[in-house]
Amino acid sequence: MIRHIAVFRFKKGTTDNQVAGVDQGLAELPRLIPEIKAYEFGRSLRFVEGTWDYAVAADFDDEGAFKIYDSHPDHVRVVETVIKPLVIDKARIQINLG
Amino acid sequence: MIRHIAVFRFKKGTTDNQVAGVDQGLAELPRLIPEIKAYEFGRSLRFVEGTWDYAVAADFDDEGAFKIYDSHPDHVRVVETVIKPLVIDKARIQINLG
Repeated sequence: MIRHIAVFRFKKGTTDNQVAGVDQGLAELPRLIPEIKAYEFGRSLRFVEGTWDYAVAADFDDEGAFKIYDSHPDHVRVVETVIKPLVIDKARIQINLG
Repeated sequence: MIRHIAVFRFKKGTTDNQVAGVDQGLAELPRLIPEIKAYEFGRSLRFVEGTWDYAVAADFDDEGAFKIYDSHPDHVRVVETVIKPLVIDKARIQINLG
């Protein structure tokens, strides 16, 4: 199993409604993309100073399953229409699950 | 349950041995800090272009448990001695688990 993580910083002035649009877009994806084995996402709880704004953690069986997700039309649609317009910085990574 | 995520970019010239030191330091922490409910960490698998270098995903019952971890002397020791010397950029965030 592997985990894909994406963390975002959003533009100043990003509204709660815009972030709710990200939540809603991502919430659809597990039913549309069966390769997703676990899917966690949400806005920063801001428990400490300096945190970024939003994160997605998605678990897959292997690299092939991750790549199906990454290029899946429904995922690309959510990224292009509701996420990318808000993003000023992003950190993406895939790691092995122990 | 909440998830804390930290993603790092390392300095150019960081060696495999230095990254193995991060692996080893983090691997000790679940036994030293019982508040950690799940702990995943590791270097980038580099399935796609532009990924960062290393990530940690740690699950806790609540904010209080996360804060015990965040300020725990063993965690702080690993951060200060083996992680911070390598880091040029970091993205930290805590999110609710669905």
